[in-house]
Amino acid sequence: MTGILHGTLHGVGVGPGDPELITLKALRILQSAPVIAWPAPLQGDSMARAIAAPHIDARNPGDEPVEIAIRMPMVAERFPAQNVYDDAARDIANHLDAGRDVAVLCEGDPFFYGSFMYLFGRLAEHYPVEVTPGISSLTASAAALAAPLAARNDVLSVLPAPLPETELKQHLQDSDAVAIIKIGAHLDKIKTVLMELNLLENARYVEHATMATQTVRRLADIESAPYFSMILVHKRQNAWREN
Amino acid sequence: MTGILHGTLHGVGVGPGDPELITLKALRILQSAPVIAWPAPLQGDSMARAIAAPHIDARNPGDEPVEIAIRMPMVAERFPAQNVYDDAARDIANHLDAGRDVAVLCEGDPFFYGSFMYLFGRLAEHYPVEVTPGISSLTASAAALAAPLAARNDVLSVLPAPLPETELKQHLQDSDAVAIIKIGAHLDKIKTVLMELNLLENARYVEHATMATQTVRRLADIESAPYFSMILVHKRQNAWREN
Repeated sequence: MTGILHGTLHGVGVGPGDPELITLKALRILQSAPVIAWPAPLQGDSMARAIAAPHIDARNPGDEPVEIAIRMPMVAERFPAQNVYDDAARDIANHLDAGRDVAVLCEGDPFFYGSFMYLFGRLAEHYPVEVTPGISSLTASAAALAAPLAARNDVLSVLPAPLPETELKQHLQDSDAVAIIKIGAHLDKIKTVLMELNLLENARYVEHATMATQTVRRLADIESAPYFSMILVHKRQNAWREN
Repeated sequence: MTGILHGTLHGVGVGPGDPELITLKALRILQSAPVIAWPAPLQGDSMARAIAAPHIDARNPGDEPVEIAIRMPMVAERFPAQNVYDDAARDIANHLDAGRDVAVLCEGDPFFYGSFMYLFGRLAEHYPVEVTPGISSLTASAAALAAPLAARNDVLSVLPAPLPETELKQHLQDSDAVAIIKIGAHLDKIKTVLMELNLLENARYVEHATMATQTVRRLADIESAPYFSMILVHKRQNAWREN
């Protein structure tokens, strides 16, 4: 600790994929932060960095940010490697200690099932933090499907697909609208549960919402699903036409 | 129906209140749409129009949009007056028939408990519709509270406060994180339910998230709540510190 004023840790939602779906506030931070950190797989490109690319790359020569790649093994179901976040938090803290703001790019929204929380948990007690919300996959998927997510007194539940079958079934029965996330290897289980509840025809599938690769299909036609996909189930189809 | 190409109906999320929290895409539409419609109370200002004001008012002289106010009696719990939406849909359809795009401004996100669905239900079968997602009150409130909304395999439920006590209680018991919306006159009921479940200390209250009037307080200290307020309940407090 020195006498220097600490920098601020920014969690910046960059939205679901379309670079036009970032906020003016996120844009301002991307174009001014001296340090920008982003999550990435061990090898290959960072999706968050790719979404932000047109905005960061528009900075003037000489004004480029320092960039920190947080490379994480992408192993389904396994808890993230603590040491990767420990190391990243240490790197970021060094910049904050020197009075430099650090913007951490987050796909979608930083606090909606995002990995930003692991840095937040390590740094929030020691540094000023500001979170800039982003368009989440939840509302992006509803827009892509051209279907209202929830209305009036609907109960809307977000269910991670890795949950046990009985738990998924219970929430599907108790809610009016459901968004199922993190599908990947759990596709067959989800389809089985929906069939048993006679809800397969109420389920719509969207993959890579708002990206160039966006796909919208009947869930019944889907045989495999990437991590960035979502299933929306409306118990009362066309409920918004009732009024 | 004429030979003219129809205009597109745009549902445009303008975000939760901070004019900087609109997306670049929403900004582009606000600055180019020939017709802009917005919801408002019978008397007084439209919140959606106020959020968009700096962006619409920046348009060049001579390029101002035609504006349509959709004035709705704001009576708690009562279903919206069908005739108001019928009339608005007719006005909007006239512009679309003439080939003019119409942007309908929506507080937050158009498909997250928004009144846009009433126009969508009336017009989507007849005209091209494009929805531009917005920052919802859900992620804006989490950012305002500086608290992750949900993580890992959390079940997140959105509960409208007008629901019966037993239903609220059931969902609060079954979910890991809960957002309670539309509080208003239901504040006492919500507090009672949370106390009975021993969750009052886990409940955080935010009012007018991201606006100049934003208020963040312990729910226990709150005696009355406006419509634009939200309660976030995390069953596992500081769960994001576990890893």
